[in-house]
Amino acid sequence: MSEEPRRVDPIARLIQAFGRLPGVGEKSATRLAFFVLRQGSAFAEDLSQALLDATQRIGLCERCMNLTDQPQCSICLDARRDGTVLCVVETVQDLRAIERSREFQGRYHVLHGALAPLEGVGPEDLKIKELLARLQGIDAGVEELIIATNPSVEGEATALYLQRLIAGAGLKVSRIASGLPIGGDFEYADPATISQALSGRRQMNS
Amino acid sequence: MSEEPRRVDPIARLIQAFGRLPGVGEKSATRLAFFVLRQGSAFAEDLSQALLDATQRIGLCERCMNLTDQPQCSICLDARRDGTVLCVVETVQDLRAIERSREFQGRYHVLHGALAPLEGVGPEDLKIKELLARLQGIDAGVEELIIATNPSVEGEATALYLQRLIAGAGLKVSRIASGLPIGGDFEYADPATISQALSGRRQMNS
Repeated sequence: MSEEPRRVDPIARLIQAFGRLPGVGEKSATRLAFFVLRQGSAFAEDLSQALLDATQRIGLCERCMNLTDQPQCSICLDARRDGTVLCVVETVQDLRAIERSREFQGRYHVLHGALAPLEGVGPEDLKIKELLARLQGIDAGVEELIIATNPSVEGEATALYLQRLIAGAGLKVSRIASGLPIGGDFEYADPATISQALSGRRQMNS
Repeated sequence: MSEEPRRVDPIARLIQAFGRLPGVGEKSATRLAFFVLRQGSAFAEDLSQALLDATQRIGLCERCMNLTDQPQCSICLDARRDGTVLCVVETVQDLRAIERSREFQGRYHVLHGALAPLEGVGPEDLKIKELLARLQGIDAGVEELIIATNPSVEGEATALYLQRLIAGAGLKVSRIASGLPIGGDFEYADPATISQALSGRRQMNS
């Protein structure tokens, strides 16, 4: 429905803007728009300001390519972090997921993607240059590189590419384990995961 | 994750702001926030401006209480609309749903809610005063009032209340039909709907 056919209807425009978010269809967008209209100006101003702040103030950490509103992110600045281990991830969301597990004490490097030749994503589109630079510069003390790209075709290709690229640098390069997720079930696992779970088996007795 | 513990982290704030939208949990909010960050400033500015425009420029139509950025909405201003029939709805979304069906040529009145005594919503919280005023003023030519509140406990209570309130005004007051939806199935219909479908039956021969 267009409230004022000859001019831009602000409600239609808001619905349209919400509809451009991922996973938000026209019905959801309409619901969100009317919710915002019911909440009033203060609510809209708050969301509006959050959007502007995030996109205007946030940039990449000059060291690890994480998102931050400082030159370096809090993880890179944290002196308690283990400077000898670097975990290479595809995205900032992956970094955050690993952080939530509280299992990793080293630092990160965010590639911002994975190699996908068919989609035109080559090494120069990833933050690989930046990774090599820090390994020879500020992070020359790194001894192990954990390649934590996703266990997908693109993630594996990226892992292999990095491993070859770094082969001569005298670094330990490791790859995250793949297999059945904790709580998973063979019945519902795909053949590739089962195959990984079997070939990556560990001896239980010694 | 708080990027900068002592200051407000713009990413966390954006996730929080998205999370206040209905149906958006923390995971979805995070996904939306990172989507916006990937899209960059222009995208965020567009959504931001749409939010401000909608909430700052949109108000209630002084005649029917629809949302509009003009004193009167386009439906009220449309001279081709039948001025003798008024359809009373609970919300602007309901009005839009009826408009989409293209079945109704009259004008509307939006109550902005339904009577719900247990939640403290009484007649004074709905746009009933405004309805009576227009029936005695600008819309004195109305001959029929179609009460299209929802067929719920609150909607029925509101319909009954309005019918009694307007009883003496010499207006035809009608209520939308309830029954099985088109394409519905007795097997999956609830008892109340089946009961309505039976008691509201229409003779097919004459």
